[in-house]
Order: sequence, then structure tokens, then C-alpha cells
Amino acid sequence: MILTRTVAEARAAITAATADLTHLAPRVGLVPTMGALHAGHGALLAQAREENDVVVVSVFVNPLQFEDPDDFAHYPRTLNEDVALIAEHVPDRPVIVFAPDTAEMYPGYRAFGDVPQITVSSGSMGTVFEGASRPGHFDGVCTVVTKLWNTLMPPAPATLRSYFGRKDAQQLAILTRTAADLNIPVEIRPVDLVRAPSGLALSSRNRRLDDHGMDKALILSAALSTLREQAVSGEPIDVHTARKMIDDDATVTLDYLEVVDPATLVPLSAAELRAPLSRDALALVAAVVPPVRLIDNMVLPAG
Amino acid sequence: MILTRTVAEARAAITAATADLTHLAPRVGLVPTMGALHAGHGALLAQAREENDVVVVSVFVNPLQFEDPDDFAHYPRTLNEDVALIAEHVPDRPVIVFAPDTAEMYPGYRAFGDVPQITVSSGSMGTVFEGASRPGHFDGVCTVVTKLWNTLMPPAPATLRSYFGRKDAQQLAILTRTAADLNIPVEIRPVDLVRAPSGLALSSRNRRLDDHGMDKALILSAALSTLREQAVSGEPIDVHTARKMIDDDATVTLDYLEVVDPATLVPLSAAELRAPLSRDALALVAAVVPPVRLIDNMVLPAG
Repeated sequence: MILTRTVAEARAAITAATADLTHLAPRVGLVPTMGALHAGHGALLAQAREENDVVVVSVFVNPLQFEDPDDFAHYPRTLNEDVALIAEHVPDRPVIVFAPDTAEMYPGYRAFGDVPQITVSSGSMGTVFEGASRPGHFDGVCTVVTKLWNTLMPPAPATLRSYFGRKDAQQLAILTRTAADLNIPVEIRPVDLVRAPSGLALSSRNRRLDDHGMDKALILSAALSTLREQAVSGEPIDVHTARKMIDDDATVTLDYLEVVDPATLVPLSAAELRAPLSRDALALVAAVVPPVRLIDNMVLPAG
Repeated sequence: MILTRTVAEARAAITAATADLTHLAPRVGLVPTMGALHAGHGALLAQAREENDVVVVSVFVNPLQFEDPDDFAHYPRTLNEDVALIAEHVPDRPVIVFAPDTAEMYPGYRAFGDVPQITVSSGSMGTVFEGASRPGHFDGVCTVVTKLWNTLMPPAPATLRSYFGRKDAQQLAILTRTAADLNIPVEIRPVDLVRAPSGLALSSRNRRLDDHGMDKALILSAALSTLREQAVSGEPIDVHTARKMIDDDATVTLDYLEVVDPATLVPLSAAELRAPLSRDALALVAAVVPPVRLIDNMVLPAG
């Protein structure tokens, strides 16, 4: 494993690693992370290892994604442990870790709040759902990921794939659109979310739930499953009743539950929801199950 | 010359043109234009030809740069004449023209006003000077040029250079910063502005000036020259008097005259203007000389 700290070091390491290979078109798989890696990142690393000749993992706590400077300051930084976890998941591929500091990623960025001059804007897709309560968050994600792609793009004929979990469905949709709209030659590879046998989507936040909370949290995946069953059997999609399932539980506070176009995040119309689905849709939900806010999503297949 | 209309065609043509060359690292020079090419573009084409093995010229009227849909609709489209002018200026290099339509550059872009989802934001540099009277203009420039760079980036080991005139000093500064901030591996090559023997900066708008207007317009370069002479001789830079030179002419309406950092466009402080300049500065001016609005700029060298 090679640990790089600067853009120049990372580019040199990627050029060397892809030149070493005898493949005609080496495949480079990038897993962008903010570090503090846990088992949930294992699925991303495993798929990147499975599908590529070289694995690149970026570890960068991006100040632009935080609204609260305190959250940014206290975000866990555990590079030694991260490196060990990466090595464990990718034992048999050349691995390059790119762990720049803030000054390397944002030269001219001085104090918190001093944003870089040129940024990538996520448009209306970044202001809904998770973006509604986190203004600027998805612009920060788009900006840093665009920078990472441009920095870590291997020289031709090598190609770049970038791995994102389906758990963060909005982020996946926005970054897929970023690559397309800005003509960045990277292939987006979604990684399926993992559920407990109970149906609960795995998340590091689940650790903060007690047994009662764990039980209450099941209502999110239950509501989504109801919508999915309606789609599979070609029935009308009854979003209202699904919302009510969650609302009826006094301990759970629903933030949103919507059925949207997976690519644009635009909610399906009432007419579209009444007829069998003509294309795959995505059901998104967010709710507070004290003391945590949980998100989940499920694909509703075309009928 | 190869005329390409789609991203895929342009990429294939650039790959083929650079593969044909025996150079170890072919140099590709890109001249982004909105077409309606005139003699002023000749200097850009000539320098791109001089410094590169392959010349790429993009011809695309970018709707995002226009505030007024009528201006966009009536902007001259003269591709046949443009192609002839390009061939004339670059007779001895492989030339690829990239002339996409709006749907190719902005898929999903339907009617005017329906902006693409993901865009590049020019930040505070895009809201001052020329940006103050054209909201969104420089965001549109950054977005389309980022797309052009990513589309027309040749495969390694070929390298990309992109040519912009110093006449549009703010655009040059913003795009230089765009490449750096988004880590796009393109070299920005500025092309000097051309002046008439009278001092007047050449511009297609000058054609709309009558003899009296031509005469009046000289006050812009005269005011800048005064500042430049102060810088060269290590005197204090007297912006106030330079402004007054223009203000005193009743037919000319000053918009702005500022001395700024060439990279950030931030005006120099009063203290910096009083002492001999410790680094090169840039004097920017815009004024209406009826019936046209003119801009000009001059480098003030460090003392």
C-alpha cells in the first residue's frame, strides 16, 4: 500500500501502478471516504477490489460538507486504523491511499467559512430531501468529488470507476449527474445497501439506538417494503398510507417519505403513482427515531 | 480539418489525431469560441498553432452565458465562415472543430431558462466588475469551459493547453482559477490584447463607434497608461485621478476603474497603492462610450 499526501504524489503513484500492469486497459477503482472507516465501508472496498486492478481510497474530511465548524473539528480522524482496515479488505491489489490535508485540497482556504473560489453546484437536486436540512452540503460533496476524480483520474488507457453506496441514494443520484453534466469520464458504480435480517438498513448510527429504538426503527423499512410490494404486484403506489404507518407511531417523527425518479429525484405525479410503474422508481424516507435521524430507500421496480 | 458535432466524435478525433503523431507527448491547443470568428480570434488561433501539434477549436453559443434569451437567439451563427477562417489561420496542423448543438452540451436542457442540474460556480470573482451587470454570466462560462476541457482532454501522454485573450481579463482570471480549484490538468495560455497605434484596445465593438467616439474611447487606455507609468516609476498609484480623467469627459460614463490582484481580482488596499508595488497588479476599466460599452486593462508591473 502506498500512502500519498499530495495531488502530485497521488498522480505519480497512480501512473506508476497502472504502468506496472500488463493489462491493455487497467481498471482503477476509487472509493472516496472521509475516513473513520467501519464495516459499512467494507462492502465498498470489497466491490472495488473485485472489479478493478488497482484500488484507490481517498481519506479526506471535507470541511465544505459540514454546516457546523464544531462537527468538522470533532469528526473522528483515525488514519492508522483506516489504513489497516483497507489493507485487510484489499489484500491482493495495488492500493493507493490519498489522504491530503485541507491546505492541499483547498489552497487559499484559510479559516472555516472561507470557501474556495470555484465550486460545483448541485442545483435543485441538492436542496431537497437531505439537502433541505443541510444547505450547501451537496455542493460541498460535488466540489470535493469532482476534485478527487480530476486528481485521481489514471492516464489512458486506464479507466476510472468510483464507488458509492446506495444507502445515500441522493448523493449517488447527484454524483451520477455530476459526472454526466460535467463530462467527467468516470464510471459510477453503486454498491447495494446491506440490511439486517430484521430489515433495518445498516448504519453506524444504529449503534446509538437501544433495543426499543431498534424495534421502532423497523417501521422505516416496513413502510418502504409495503410500497415495493404494491409496485411488484402492479397496484397503485399508496404513499399516503405509507406515511401514515410512520406517523402513527408517536415515538417516530417522519421527515419525508417520497417516491421519486431515481435519476432526477423529482417526485412521481399522482397519475404515475396510480398506474403500474412504467419505469423503476425510488422510495426515499427519513425519520427521527430518538436519539438519531435515520434514512432508508428502496427501489420500486417497473410493473 | 475534421468537423465534429458530438462529444463522442470529438473524443475519437482527438485520440486519432494525437495517436498519429510521432511526438512523445503531443501538445493539443484548444481555442474555445462562440463562433462568429473575426480578426480578433486570429491571434488566439495563431498562438495555438504556434505552440501545439494539434489545434482544437470549439464553436458553441452557450445559452448559460446570456441573460437575455433574445440576445442568445440572435447571436450570429456563421459556422461555414468560421471554418474557413480557422483553416486560413491554421494551415499546417491537424485541426479538429467541435461544434455541438445545445442538446449535445446540455442533455435535458429543454427551453431557455431550464438550466442544467450540475454547474460550476465562479464564486465572488464572478459577481464583481463585468459580473456585477451580468448575473450568472461567469458561472455559465465556467460551466461550459469545464465541460469543454473534460470533453476535449486528449489521452495521455498528450497534454492540453487552452487559449484565452487578456482583453477579457476577468474571464482569464476566473478560468485560471477554475482549472486550479477543480484540479483540471489543463494549462491556461493567455493571449496578449492588441492595440491600435492610437492605444485603443481592439474589439469588434469598436466598429460601432464613429470618428468622434473613436477619439473619446482613447481616454480608457490613456487613464490606464497613466497608472502604468506611475507603477513603472515606483510612484504611488493614483486611482482617484485616473477615474477623474474619465469622469471629466461628459460623453463618457465610467462604470469602474480599479487596480486589483491579477489572480484574485481583489482591489489593492490604499496602503499597497501608496508604496511601490510589491507584485504585478492589474488595472481594469469599463466605460460607456455611446453607443457601446468598452472594457480595457493593463498590467502594472511590480516596482
